[in-house]
This record gives sequence, C-alpha cells and structure tokens, in this order.
Amino acid sequence: MAQLKGACIIGQSGGPTSVINASAYGVIRTALDTPEITAVYGAAHGIKGVLNDQLYDMGQEDERELEFLLNTPSSELGSCRYKIADPEMDDTDYRRILEIFRKYDVRYFFYNGGNDSMDTCAKISRYMSKSGYDCRVIGVPKTIDNDLFGTDHCPGFPSAAKYIASSCAEVYKDARVYDIGAVTIMEIMGRNAGWLAGSAALAGVVGCAPDLIYLPEVDFDMDRFLADVEAVYRREGNCIVAVSEGIHYADGSFVSKAKISATDGFGHVQLGGLAAVLANVVKDRIGVKVRGIELSLLQRCGAHLASQTDIDESFQAGKAAVEAAVAGATDKMVGFSCTREGGQYHCQIQLFDLASVANYEKKVPREWINPEGNGVTQAFLDYALPLIQGENSRVVENGLPRFARLKKVLASQK
Amino acid sequence: MAQLKGACIIGQSGGPTSVINASAYGVIRTALDTPEITAVYGAAHGIKGVLNDQLYDMGQEDERELEFLLNTPSSELGSCRYKIADPEMDDTDYRRILEIFRKYDVRYFFYNGGNDSMDTCAKISRYMSKSGYDCRVIGVPKTIDNDLFGTDHCPGFPSAAKYIASSCAEVYKDARVYDIGAVTIMEIMGRNAGWLAGSAALAGVVGCAPDLIYLPEVDFDMDRFLADVEAVYRREGNCIVAVSEGIHYADGSFVSKAKISATDGFGHVQLGGLAAVLANVVKDRIGVKVRGIELSLLQRCGAHLASQTDIDESFQAGKAAVEAAVAGATDKMVGFSCTREGGQYHCQIQLFDLASVANYEKKVPREWINPEGNGVTQAFLDYALPLIQGENSRVVENGLPRFARLKKVLASQK
Repeated sequence: MAQLKGACIIGQSGGPTSVINASAYGVIRTALDTPEITAVYGAAHGIKGVLNDQLYDMGQEDERELEFLLNTPSSELGSCRYKIADPEMDDTDYRRILEIFRKYDVRYFFYNGGNDSMDTCAKISRYMSKSGYDCRVIGVPKTIDNDLFGTDHCPGFPSAAKYIASSCAEVYKDARVYDIGAVTIMEIMGRNAGWLAGSAALAGVVGCAPDLIYLPEVDFDMDRFLADVEAVYRREGNCIVAVSEGIHYADGSFVSKAKISATDGFGHVQLGGLAAVLANVVKDRIGVKVRGIELSLLQRCGAHLASQTDIDESFQAGKAAVEAAVAGATDKMVGFSCTREGGQYHCQIQLFDLASVANYEKKVPREWINPEGNGVTQAFLDYALPLIQGENSRVVENGLPRFARLKKVLASQK
Repeated sequence: MAQLKGACIIGQSGGPTSVINASAYGVIRTALDTPEITAVYGAAHGIKGVLNDQLYDMGQEDERELEFLLNTPSSELGSCRYKIADPEMDDTDYRRILEIFRKYDVRYFFYNGGNDSMDTCAKISRYMSKSGYDCRVIGVPKTIDNDLFGTDHCPGFPSAAKYIASSCAEVYKDARVYDIGAVTIMEIMGRNAGWLAGSAALAGVVGCAPDLIYLPEVDFDMDRFLADVEAVYRREGNCIVAVSEGIHYADGSFVSKAKISATDGFGHVQLGGLAAVLANVVKDRIGVKVRGIELSLLQRCGAHLASQTDIDESFQAGKAAVEAAVAGATDKMVGFSCTREGGQYHCQIQLFDLASVANYEKKVPREWINPEGNGVTQAFLDYALPLIQGENSRVVENGLPRFARLKKVLASQK
C-alpha cells in the first residue's frame, strides 16, 4: 500500500460515554506522533464541524491537557446527531465534505461513535472512493449500549456496566435498611439491547444482585412482572428490579409511555420515566412501599467509576485506528476480539468491514437470559465481568475530578 | 465521675448515609477495646431492636469484617423510623427499654442518627435518669441533610456533597456535548435545608458549576425561575439547574406535588418527582430541550465517592462518643467545632447537650445565598469545600465494592 501523507480529522458523534475521549486521545496522540500525518484536526460536533469548517487544531493543545482526555467524560470535541443523507439521493453534504478535505489536505478520517456513526463513516468512505479522492476512513466504536456488531464489546459499555453494577450494589445496601421492606425499581439505559440492564447482575459478585432483571430482548408481560415482584417480596421482604428503558410488550409498544411522543434526529423514540411508571403500577397492584430510580445520564458520564480496562482498550482502539490507516486500511471499524478461557481475559484489536457493522444491532443472546425472562445467566456474567476490572487513576483537584481543558483553536482562524 | 462498668448498645436510625457505618465502627471498635465495657451489642433496626430484644453481639464478629464498615454504605445494623412516645404520655416503650438494659446490664447507649434520633436519645436519657438507672447516653450524629444544630457539620453531609458536586461536574460535561443546548434540572435531596443542593456549586472549583441553584430557604417563584432559566439559556445556549427537593412557594406548598400524599413515620411529607415537574414546566413555557435528573438514593449511599475527611471524622465521632461516655459524659451529642482560617481546615470534637440539638433544624444562612435567591455565595463554598477533600481507600473485589459481611449473631440466642 502506498504511503499517504496528509492531515487527519477526528470527529465524535452520538451520545457520549465515560471513555469516548480516551479513544479520541488514542487517535490524537498517535496521529500527532505519526510522521505521515501532517496535521491533526478535531471536528467540532462531529460531521457538522466538517460541514461548517469548524476544525480544532490539536497540535496547538498542551500535551498534558490532552492526556487528561483519558479521564474526561462526554465528547470533548462536541457531538451531533446529524443524519447524513444517502449520497445517491442527495450528495450536497458529501461535496461539502470533499471540499473541506481538499482545503485542509485531509487524507485520514476517524469517526468515533456508535451504530449510526459507523453508517455515516461507511457512506463517506464510499463517496470518497467513488470520487477518486484518496482518503482512508476508519470508525472507532463507542456506545454504552454495546450493540455494535462484530466486535466482542464496545468501548464505553464496560464503564457504564461498572457504574451500574456498583450503583446497584450500593442501592441494594440502602434498600435493605429498614425493617419494613420495599420494592426498588432501577431504570437503566438500553433501547433495544439489554446489555446494560443485564450488567446490574454483576453486583451479585459482591452479594448484591438485583432480584429481577428485564431486558428488551424478551417481550414484557405486566402480569408476570407483578407476579415475579410479589413472589420475591413475599419471600425476601424486599425486591430490587433492574429494567431496560426499552422494555416493550409483545405488540412492540413501550412500557414507558411517558415520553414516546418525542423522537431524536434519527427517528428513535426518546425513552424515560419507566421507573416511575412501573413504581406506580407496583404500588397500586401490590400495595407495598416502592421507589423508582432512573440512573439517567450518570451511567454514561460517571467517569469517576470508569473501568481501567475500558479506558486502556478505548485508547488502544483509537491508536490502532491511526496505525491501521497509515498502514493502508480504510473502510474499516476497529473492534475487539477477546478470549476468556479459564477465567483469563485477553483482548486484541481486530478490524471489521464498515459495511458489515453499520446498521446492525447486536442484542443479548436469548440463551444468556434465563428461561423465565427475568434474569441473566452465568454466561452473561462470564462475558461482562472481565470488562469492569481495574480502578482508574483519575486526577482529583480539590476533591473533584480534573477534566481536560482544551484551547480549541480553530484551524480556519490561522 | 465514678467508673461505670457494663455493656453498651449501638443503634442506627433514620435514613442511611455513606458513612454512618464508619461512626458505628468508631463506637464498636473503641468499645471492644475499652475495659469498662463488658459487651458490645448492635441493635437490629435501631430502637426497635432494643424493644424486640434483637441485639447482635459485636464481639462475635471478625475484626477485619468490622473494619470494612468504614467503606460500607447504608446502616449495616438496620435502621428504623420509629417515633418513640413522649414518656410523660406513654412510658410503655421506656419500661421495655429499661427491662432490656437490665437484662444485658447495658450501661452505655449510643444512638447514631439525625434530628429525630437525637430526640429519641434525649428522651431515653431523661427516662433512665428519672428511673435512677445509671446509664450514659450519647448521640452520634449523621444526616446528609446537615441540618443538626450546634455542630459545624454532620457526618454524612460531606460525602453526599462530594457525590453531588462530582456528579454535577460530570453531568455538566455531558449536557454540553451537542451543538443544540438543553436545560438540565438536577433534583437533590433536602427537605427544609438546602445544604445539599448548595453543594452542587462546589463543581465550580473545576469549572463545572450549575448555572442556577434553588434552596428551600428562599420561597420559590415559578415565573422568576422560568425567567432565570430562559436568560441563562439564551445567553449560554445551555442551562444547568440544581434544586432542593423541598423547594416551596411562599404559601409553603411544595413545588413537587407528585407524591405529597404519602408521609413517613414522623409525619414528614415524602418528596420526589420535582425534576420531572420542573422539566415539564420548562418544556411547556420555554420550549427548549430539557432533562430532569433525580439523584435519588445514590447521593446518600454512593460510598465509592465518600470523602475521606468524612470517613475519618465519622469514625472519630463514634470513638469520641465512647471515650466521653466512659469518662462520665451523658445526655450529649458528639459534634464538631471547626476553623477554616486562611484556608486551613481544622476540626475538633465538641460535646453538645442533647436538649439543645434535638428538634432544631439548621438551615443555610440567608447571607450564604445570593440576593437573587438562585445561587450560593463564596462563604458557602469556603464552608463546604474542605469537607469533600480526600479520596477514600475502599477495597474493590472483582471491580466492585467490597462491603462488610457481618455474622450478626443475636445475643438472645447465646
């Protein structure tokens, strides 16, 4: 493969995670150290930053501040939920992207996001190829939802899983404090895939597992749910339930109807309020003390509990993207191939064709969910437990997290 | 003061905190090491454990497991919200308590709780004194609400404040990720006192302060609130609001009306759902993207973020209670007297008369809230910042928090 010299762009897209910036740092740090890459630009708000010619010159940043990205949650370059058109239908955006790529001599494009972002990545890759513009395009995955196809798991999921399992363990202790028990319902993110809600079961490792877990992979039945909760409560005097926000009835309608009128830029239904909905039903029908807890944004931005395994792997994913691109790869997504034989976890980088991952959703296998559909199996735990290992070594300043403080100098202003 | 030999009871009451067990450990460890104390009993579910003759023999516990109490959230001995009668009206409970005290030769009673628990403590102390039963009664404070009179601050508050400020910093990063801004409303515990909501302002130390903070000390005005939010949003493109769950209108009615039909055992109105209420109003009236986040139980049980200062002081409070009692003190609450001159924080133990603290509520001074009533002043920050210092050294097992595992052997079964 011929050597390709030029600038690179790194963009971030979709919902943020605790470690998406660790991946961005992997790209930025490696790119800055790579002779073939002449300039490193961070796109402000993902692909929108390219379209709007808002590119930060990463070479202007202080090295130490860049390193803080390893422990800075959210998407430091800014994110977007902009759905790029199909180039066959409307190539306006693509022509603009090509114009910007030419303007800055961009030969490497790294896009750091989830399912929809891999689709964006694949489309740009195809368009550049069709246009005869020599540019290597690599997707760097992130999504707490863990629903990307191909890769063993997605950067971002392990840290969210660790946050969820830790919080579940703490809530377990809190919920058992009174002599009169309660039903506690924890609402966990996950629209179509139950990886995150299933992770609550990891708290069982320290004796604090939720009693019941409901994932969107199994159709929800309110009567069976109420019977499950009542049975546990009568037996144990307490009941902790973990639910995916996306649980739905057999007809596909969401159990949470609270916010189903709103949709995001990709036409996804915005969910939320499920814990409150279920808490009210339990209160009315079983008549016990009940509390609904929505883990909300904190499960995706709680970087103080980020898994060091996740941080390391996220950084490696970004680094590998640059190395692979410089070596000639394009139209790929960086992912992981992992083994867990004999309790020994080993993770290595693997490249996947963008076309094979974009727009597919990886769900929890039915056999990793118990037959009753109200919990996960040992296979699920064996899969997820290695991922949450390792306490991160974040810097604390005055008792609070020290995040990266970037200058964000626009390249267009030079 | 004559030497008093006999057993001791430690009980926990009220809502749990991240460090109430550190105080219990301070009592238990010190009592076990004190020759005058012949046996150390932990009351199951506070005063109810005394009434029901359910006392755990702490001498049976493994020393190492007891030490894990320093980092175990919630009330490990179990808590209660049992309101003890006024002994002049009905002395049934007190006669039973005296019977149990006599049965186990209990000469030291330590009660670990908040406002209502100090009241329980004071009543028991008075009754024992009136009955001529020689027994020393000391209250060990805990409450995330920080509303206990006399003491500089309450064990439990610093850790909750640290959790809230850290979470606020992380949410701040997350909320700014898109190019289209949002209003984020964080609901924080605090019925009548705004110490916890005010603590969100500590995130300003790392540049992530909420834009607006509303405490229950200032009457809430919905129109002014909406004007505040809109002004910040128009100016900044984003707005983060921290609100105490207990904010109320000038007529005393709570802004959150969602759950005001339920009350706890002390007749306190149970609050919650405020974030959702305000989010709906903002959405309707300002028409921007808005998200309500209720920090819920995690702010009081998130021991993984407990302030080491708080853990140390909580332990010391328990230790000092035993030492003071053995030295002859009774009818007191252990508290803190602190100085912060020149940025140097110094904390020392001080004993307060139970009668002077029970049933009073310490609120945030009006002069520590800005004139507009939508933020706190530097004086508040200077007060709170030293308290959240120090990262705790909790033990992690398989990536998850390792909590104490007590045997809880009932003394009555011996």
